[in-house]
Amino acid sequence: MADIPARTELKVTTGPIRGSRKVHVGPLNVAMREVVLEPSSGEPPLRVYDPSGPYTDPQARIDIMAGLPELRRDWIRARGDVEEVNQRELRPEDNGQLGPDRSGGVQPFPNVRRRVLRARAGANVSQMHYARRGIITPEMEYVATRENLGREMLAEYTRDGEDFGAAIPDYVTPEFVRDEVARGRAIIPNNINHPETEPMAIGRNFLVKINANIGNSAVASNVAAEVDKLVWAIRWGADTVMDLSTGRNIHDTREWILRNSPVPIGTVPIYQALEKVGGIAEELTWEIFRDTLIEQAEQGVDYFTIHAGVRLPYIPMTAKRVTGIVSRGGSIMAKWCLAHHKESFLYERFDEITEIMKAYDIAYSLGDGLRPGSIADANDEAQFAELYTLGELTKRAWAHDVQVMIEGPGHVPMHKIKANMDKQLEACGEAPFYTLGPLTTDIAPGYDHITSGIGAAMIGWYGTAMLCYVTPKEHLGLPDRDDVKVGVVTYKLAAHAADLAKGHPAAKMRDDALSRARFEFRWRDQFNLSLDPDTAEQYHDQTLPAEGAKTAHFCSMCGPKFCSMKITQEVRDFAAKQNAGVESFLASSPVPLAGGAGPVTSEEAEEGMAQMSRVYDKMGRELYLGSGGREHD
Amino acid sequence: MADIPARTELKVTTGPIRGSRKVHVGPLNVAMREVVLEPSSGEPPLRVYDPSGPYTDPQARIDIMAGLPELRRDWIRARGDVEEVNQRELRPEDNGQLGPDRSGGVQPFPNVRRRVLRARAGANVSQMHYARRGIITPEMEYVATRENLGREMLAEYTRDGEDFGAAIPDYVTPEFVRDEVARGRAIIPNNINHPETEPMAIGRNFLVKINANIGNSAVASNVAAEVDKLVWAIRWGADTVMDLSTGRNIHDTREWILRNSPVPIGTVPIYQALEKVGGIAEELTWEIFRDTLIEQAEQGVDYFTIHAGVRLPYIPMTAKRVTGIVSRGGSIMAKWCLAHHKESFLYERFDEITEIMKAYDIAYSLGDGLRPGSIADANDEAQFAELYTLGELTKRAWAHDVQVMIEGPGHVPMHKIKANMDKQLEACGEAPFYTLGPLTTDIAPGYDHITSGIGAAMIGWYGTAMLCYVTPKEHLGLPDRDDVKVGVVTYKLAAHAADLAKGHPAAKMRDDALSRARFEFRWRDQFNLSLDPDTAEQYHDQTLPAEGAKTAHFCSMCGPKFCSMKITQEVRDFAAKQNAGVESFLASSPVPLAGGAGPVTSEEAEEGMAQMSRVYDKMGRELYLGSGGREHD
Repeated sequence: MADIPARTELKVTTGPIRGSRKVHVGPLNVAMREVVLEPSSGEPPLRVYDPSGPYTDPQARIDIMAGLPELRRDWIRARGDVEEVNQRELRPEDNGQLGPDRSGGVQPFPNVRRRVLRARAGANVSQMHYARRGIITPEMEYVATRENLGREMLAEYTRDGEDFGAAIPDYVTPEFVRDEVARGRAIIPNNINHPETEPMAIGRNFLVKINANIGNSAVASNVAAEVDKLVWAIRWGADTVMDLSTGRNIHDTREWILRNSPVPIGTVPIYQALEKVGGIAEELTWEIFRDTLIEQAEQGVDYFTIHAGVRLPYIPMTAKRVTGIVSRGGSIMAKWCLAHHKESFLYERFDEITEIMKAYDIAYSLGDGLRPGSIADANDEAQFAELYTLGELTKRAWAHDVQVMIEGPGHVPMHKIKANMDKQLEACGEAPFYTLGPLTTDIAPGYDHITSGIGAAMIGWYGTAMLCYVTPKEHLGLPDRDDVKVGVVTYKLAAHAADLAKGHPAAKMRDDALSRARFEFRWRDQFNLSLDPDTAEQYHDQTLPAEGAKTAHFCSMCGPKFCSMKITQEVRDFAAKQNAGVESFLASSPVPLAGGAGPVTSEEAEEGMAQMSRVYDKMGRELYLGSGGREHD
Repeated sequence: MADIPARTELKVTTGPIRGSRKVHVGPLNVAMREVVLEPSSGEPPLRVYDPSGPYTDPQARIDIMAGLPELRRDWIRARGDVEEVNQRELRPEDNGQLGPDRSGGVQPFPNVRRRVLRARAGANVSQMHYARRGIITPEMEYVATRENLGREMLAEYTRDGEDFGAAIPDYVTPEFVRDEVARGRAIIPNNINHPETEPMAIGRNFLVKINANIGNSAVASNVAAEVDKLVWAIRWGADTVMDLSTGRNIHDTREWILRNSPVPIGTVPIYQALEKVGGIAEELTWEIFRDTLIEQAEQGVDYFTIHAGVRLPYIPMTAKRVTGIVSRGGSIMAKWCLAHHKESFLYERFDEITEIMKAYDIAYSLGDGLRPGSIADANDEAQFAELYTLGELTKRAWAHDVQVMIEGPGHVPMHKIKANMDKQLEACGEAPFYTLGPLTTDIAPGYDHITSGIGAAMIGWYGTAMLCYVTPKEHLGLPDRDDVKVGVVTYKLAAHAADLAKGHPAAKMRDDALSRARFEFRWRDQFNLSLDPDTAEQYHDQTLPAEGAKTAHFCSMCGPKFCSMKITQEVRDFAAKQNAGVESFLASSPVPLAGGAGPVTSEEAEEGMAQMSRVYDKMGRELYLGSGGREHD
């Protein structure tokens, strides 16, 4: 990895992803990444969606102590519906400082705002509220430009996919974004107190997004680690990040993360509320929870996971499960409900929560506290009872023009995945679905990024709008920096596979560009177009470290006497020679023929061949081992 | 990894997989692996399918120089339809010794048979031939016992899955195996000259199988590496292994592999034939190819990949492709056809090839030489033209009672995968499908075990009988030992996810056993039941190395004041207390209630809680970081 140290005390990875450059498009300077291809390709640079923010922009000055520039500041104030108020007083319990022990404190963020924004009395500052009044905000315009990457080059493109009833447009207009937000089919999570965000949309008719989870550790030095994980996760493609901090110093850690995050930040407020009552679920109260919502709203959290669907009557439905209740938030509320033998205060006070959400434009992520924690518990009555309640709550939130997405499972075998999507669409009126995996088997701890990547790609294809990543450490331990990257890249490929299958207009461009590079042995282009250029090049170099191997029009998988590419060139020349006359030659063909000559690929292979021939011999002709390179046959 | 050195000069990994013991079941001593669970679980050992052979049996004496015992020797001879003949004379070109350079020779296997078996004149020794005459062979009985693992414990089991028209029985009888082989829906690849194999079946109504590719490197010392890779691949679950050797020493390397392999070995004979003509495809002849088939048949290769579907008329159909012809075998034949402007000799001589196959019981793996090498080329006319020709050839092989499976793609986006399965079933009369991936996107080189694992799980669910693994090095370089393991484990989990979704009677037992272990914090059981106990334990130890952490009824993901398991226990007690009275309490429930008490899990958590409480504090309460352990919410 090209870890260029940032010009700050706290170290994060900055600098462009190799082979790419940052570009800013349109009047709103929408950030994108451009992969520049070899001149020999004769192809224009390929633009890719880029959530990495200023950290990958060589022009940007990064200062973790100061935080990011406030991109949306003026947009928010220009609407004239917000007022500045003093931030709520910080209390020791906000950082879990309960007992006499005040050790392990986190250095406070140096640049905390004393004054924060909230909606004027009676105002509603949610993007959904503007959308429903027909207002196209700069946030919506930003999203439209961002989602359109590459589509203008697609004049001749023919759609190819199965979208299961989605409505993906050939071209995204600001009006389309407004309409999707107005009808609740997409959300733009961006708290007015988090003006550092680059607006993004989560919705089934936009590119499939992914979320990465991070969270605090209580010793000061580790705030650096969390900020570094944030920057690392978005570098590889995380579209939103959830701060699942617990223990102490939750407030201060979150401030560091928010001020340095260009992507929306989500939290589970009940975690912090629980810490405020010393971890005793029974002692939770509405007042403590409400105060925590306001604390986090003023800091700028963009979406809250609220487990308001865990209702008292559903709890006994989990008694016969193999893995009971595995959601922490769900368990907390279940325990509270049982202890007090009362309906959940999250459900009872839902409209009061909604009033807070709309004063800051925080989106709901309605939590699936009763999701299955094993294949055995998938699609059971507890899970679906909760889902239909989430649907009821969605409509109640929408009545206040508050944005909503719905969280989904979990552990689900492949044949039961689609039912989750279908029921969610029906129960929740097409509100965006946000799923964890699902894991398609329980038997591979250590590989759950893969067991879940399978389910994630499938449910993304069926219509899920955002996929929450799972790392290899799932069920076993705490993900480190490498786990975060593996989780993000795995989910990026799953989300992309879903976009491809849905027939997203721009998705296939990248596959085709990389495949052309692969076929023409433009190794650098192949690396640079991939989701992880560093790993691709590193793997390649383990076999052929020679610099020449990266430019030779030849690969490590074919000997000097043999080359698929060369043969295909012969096929093309042959087909060209045959021209129309090809038919006679095809007398025996039982099927119609494509025929004709395709675009002829660059043909200066000789020098590269000779060069590789030497490499090949030097390597003891070990060049067909295993399935390396060309697929086996 | 527990690398116990073998008692041989050549090192391979032997000894049981941790937490498991080898068992031999029934009159035929069918080898299985048993995972022994903690007494506290009150559960019997779980039996899992085990292709690892004697290498994981502490009782077995492993001697690579001597090869494995001949399990099937007497079964084969007892049928009285074979004769012993002198093995074909070894020639220098069999090991690619063409020019004056005789260096880099491989040490010959010390225990080569001088006399080999073939069918008596006019006889047909294929399992399909016996099956069609109503004969149940020991091989079929072995398969029946092997596939039944666990099913006898499934009295109360209710089937749950979508099998897309497969016919998976509740219980596999030898007669069922015979019938599946007779109708061509399953194959039992086992050359009469490879009596070391433990019989296994490849078919849509049996457990989904996986193949791992290895291949030779030309320097002597690396024969050890190839044999080690073979043993390593089957240790982690490879059901068959393909030797894709090329370059020099192909013959000797294959002998080492075959004599030490308890799983069927497949090859692509055209690779060796090409070496015999110095790599010049145009110089290939039927005579050289035929001689190579006999050479490999006598050594004991169990299935041959034959690209007889690459017909002259189809070749121009690939001219317009983005990635042309990516199959090496396909490219070789395409080049031959173009150079001679003739129909492929593999197609012309197909019946002569079949005569050879039936004299040794070698199964066809009809190669998809025109498979797509990119998303752009998926499901095109060249691919399907070849597939229908493979269907025609399948019937021609079946006319001789020769076993057949069909190879499939490649690179296919999710929405085009099912069409591949449907067309294959229709075109090839339900002959087993054997697919490579497919990769569901082209943009993740370095992660193609995952892009393909997604497609593999899906097509396995749809009906593919065997999945050929892809390693992380695909397209980039040569897989090493670690890549082989990652590829095998990834494909094992994909195959298992497919079995689960198909509703295979025994598949879910392992998921349920592991999930119960997870929920009850039986960490060792969770590790031992997983596909890779070594990695699972290693990841766990990175967070909680303490030995106590593996026995404590508590996990690293919950604090001492909080535990999902404990809460679910409270839910169960509560539900139990409510008993029938539960309904009143559920007045407000919009859905029917499961109610009642489930099986109560073991409850001596206190000591473990206290112990973990200390760990938790010592770790600075860092216990909720990221999505480690419990899924986030």
